[in-house]
Amino acid sequence: MARDEIKVYGPATVSNVGPGFDLLGFALESPGDELIVRRNGTSKLVLYNQTDSKLPTDPELNVAAVAAASLLRELHSNEGFDLVFTRKINPGSGVGSSAASCAAAVVGLNELLGSPYEIAELIPHAMEGEKVASGSTHADNIAPAMLGGITLIRGYDPLDIKHIPYPDDLWCAVIHPHLEIKTAESRKLIPQTVPLETALKQAGNLAGLVAGLTTGDYPLIGRSVSDLFAEPYRIHQLPDYKALKESALNAGSVGTGLSGSGPSVFSLCRGEEMASGVGEQMKKHFTVRGIESRVYISRISQAGCKII
Amino acid sequence: MARDEIKVYGPATVSNVGPGFDLLGFALESPGDELIVRRNGTSKLVLYNQTDSKLPTDPELNVAAVAAASLLRELHSNEGFDLVFTRKINPGSGVGSSAASCAAAVVGLNELLGSPYEIAELIPHAMEGEKVASGSTHADNIAPAMLGGITLIRGYDPLDIKHIPYPDDLWCAVIHPHLEIKTAESRKLIPQTVPLETALKQAGNLAGLVAGLTTGDYPLIGRSVSDLFAEPYRIHQLPDYKALKESALNAGSVGTGLSGSGPSVFSLCRGEEMASGVGEQMKKHFTVRGIESRVYISRISQAGCKII
Repeated sequence: MARDEIKVYGPATVSNVGPGFDLLGFALESPGDELIVRRNGTSKLVLYNQTDSKLPTDPELNVAAVAAASLLRELHSNEGFDLVFTRKINPGSGVGSSAASCAAAVVGLNELLGSPYEIAELIPHAMEGEKVASGSTHADNIAPAMLGGITLIRGYDPLDIKHIPYPDDLWCAVIHPHLEIKTAESRKLIPQTVPLETALKQAGNLAGLVAGLTTGDYPLIGRSVSDLFAEPYRIHQLPDYKALKESALNAGSVGTGLSGSGPSVFSLCRGEEMASGVGEQMKKHFTVRGIESRVYISRISQAGCKII
Repeated sequence: MARDEIKVYGPATVSNVGPGFDLLGFALESPGDELIVRRNGTSKLVLYNQTDSKLPTDPELNVAAVAAASLLRELHSNEGFDLVFTRKINPGSGVGSSAASCAAAVVGLNELLGSPYEIAELIPHAMEGEKVASGSTHADNIAPAMLGGITLIRGYDPLDIKHIPYPDDLWCAVIHPHLEIKTAESRKLIPQTVPLETALKQAGNLAGLVAGLTTGDYPLIGRSVSDLFAEPYRIHQLPDYKALKESALNAGSVGTGLSGSGPSVFSLCRGEEMASGVGEQMKKHFTVRGIESRVYISRISQAGCKII
């Protein structure tokens, strides 16, 4: 007999990884969203928020509901569902809070409906929700949130996603300073044309990062984590960003950059111990400047959304 | 006792591989240059051309001599050498004719002088020669000509080169239609700014190509071989380029693009048989249009320059 209720975990993700603006992202083991999807016997999507985070409960504004509605439309389904948020990544933190919700919603719904689709086929629906949050259709949070691991968006037209192999001991420290940034506004700062020379540097770095990850070449990973498209126009949002990067590097970080559009900052590290040390140094950077922050230390997660 | 004379083979190379404009190149097993480097007891570089190709014999205009002079300057050497060309790739063919000469010259000279440098350290000197030929300092022919395999230039400042692993059965068909193109002029056609969207597509394709090569994902390699920076501004030099690409694809080619700045065209193929078939179809394309051409079928070569 079909289940009427399911609980899904959707992981936080780091997108815009170094030179991978709009193209490269990875999944964290934690934090993450937890979402219950249950049949409600109506023809409507109804939202319940059992977390401390502020979330829109209007289905047209809530990203998870927009993603779920997109999937239901494709299935020509009139069924109604409750979406109950029981755990929520801080919105606006830059670790894929909306992507985690969208991914969890469509994965849970698909499972409840008897898995009519493969997980990868659900991505365009999750992207519909993400669009509401960011004002643009990008998949570099959604793809790793759903599929796990490190994902490259080779292209968007059509959507072409590739899992990038990476070393077993690749960990990440993420620092979330408590400064809110709106992704949609942050995107407007980015120039829409670039010098050819800059485009070549970015392409070389992205290809270098992929080559470094697949061959376990940590020094190459380090030399490649650099973003010329978005980061230069966003770092003014963080106090003394250059000093932050240096403190992470001095603590052993392989490569540091803005997570998504910020304000969170990620540092790729070799092993858990190094990640912890780097996280500590990054926290100190904000503490001495009177800014509260939270650190996440996580292995790069092979898993995307999980039914729990 | 030190040798007074050495013979070096410098392989042809394909550069600007698909989305790898200025960044990605690979070595062929053949064709190649053969060059004798020998002490001549003077303090001058003297050029001898024993091939059918037209080559400048003025040391300031001959790319191999310029490369050799650059190395000798760094060594503060006043020794003189003969550079004797005994076999030459057709200049202007787009398969790295000048890079092969420059690479062979500095590798031979280094060996004669007792190998003061590692091969990779010689690359900047070979690039000095390449600059004379192309009007720009790029290394995507030089690097594979010297190091073999498929090489990514992660960055130029400082020069950062990575060998990209690739499947054992990766072959290449190259067609050289007998149309001459000057690299330096060809470069002037390329716009010096690009839309961000185009830059992202190119970066996604280059990263996809690297990921496809390292993981042996042939369909991904195929989807990634596409150049938006240079090829659109160069293909008018070839008759019915689109039809040529289609005929290669129909014969089983994995991905086709301009080799260097043309007029040669490369097709990546899975195995020798497919490469032969693709080469035949590409030759037919030019034959029916009244253009003579020459086909090279080669495995991607692990070897760069070799002492013979």
